[in-house]
Amino acid sequence: MCLFCRILRGEEEGYIVYRDDFFTAFLDKFPVSPGHTLIATNTHFDNILEVDDETLERVGKVVKFLGRAIKNALRADGVRILTNVGRSSGQVIFHTHIHIIPSWEDDQEVFPNFKPRAEQPKEYYMKLQRIIIEGIEKELKGNS
Amino acid sequence: MCLFCRILRGEEEGYIVYRDDFFTAFLDKFPVSPGHTLIATNTHFDNILEVDDETLERVGKVVKFLGRAIKNALRADGVRILTNVGRSSGQVIFHTHIHIIPSWEDDQEVFPNFKPRAEQPKEYYMKLQRIIIEGIEKELKGNS
Repeated sequence: MCLFCRILRGEEEGYIVYRDDFFTAFLDKFPVSPGHTLIATNTHFDNILEVDDETLERVGKVVKFLGRAIKNALRADGVRILTNVGRSSGQVIFHTHIHIIPSWEDDQEVFPNFKPRAEQPKEYYMKLQRIIIEGIEKELKGNS
Repeated sequence: MCLFCRILRGEEEGYIVYRDDFFTAFLDKFPVSPGHTLIATNTHFDNILEVDDETLERVGKVVKFLGRAIKNALRADGVRILTNVGRSSGQVIFHTHIHIIPSWEDDQEVFPNFKPRAEQPKEYYMKLQRIIIEGIEKELKGNS
């Protein structure tokens, strides 16, 4: 079974921040920037070009919702939202997922001594998971 | 009025390859790779975090449809699909658009002497527009 399917079933460590009937979001283990989060489809599809219509109809809304929540929670100036199809585009795990990558205009210290694309100390995952979950709860309240 | 609003109204040069009630796709003027295409919302929203629900419900499907069409038309091995929010993430035009960036595992010659991120000779835009429109027509037939 693929790595992301195992994370979704709780058979592999993953710092989950959000879950609904179609998507599960968790921290990227090798983050490009602090708060880098992945939105994976609960059903296994190799990539976004394979996803069924029922899921596709919901993907825009979840991207907006989590993008806003993460950006606000981390006081980021922007977010890059992307999904790779195929090894030539940089896809590593062949289970559809969308990256949410926060960015800042100036250097900032969301997590001290953050090293991009490296495995982080456990404190990173614990801290960012907590901040993002709080941001999602706030965003949910704002929408209700 | 913003550059993309002017392209959508035909007041500015743009190599349009697709249009429906919600989205218009055209070639990126400074392509990262041959066939780099932008899907813009017909309505002006600054970025994807501002887009209304009606449009968001359709964004997944149009991304899949055009992603497949472009990948197949150019015999690409993959595509990167991304949208930037905010200057810190690389957003330059503040009108929601999603990049479709084809990629290949080996060097290929879709367009001779292609220079990434540069303005291309007119022949590039003419040729790629034609190839992508043909690919979209083929994809449409495949879906009907």
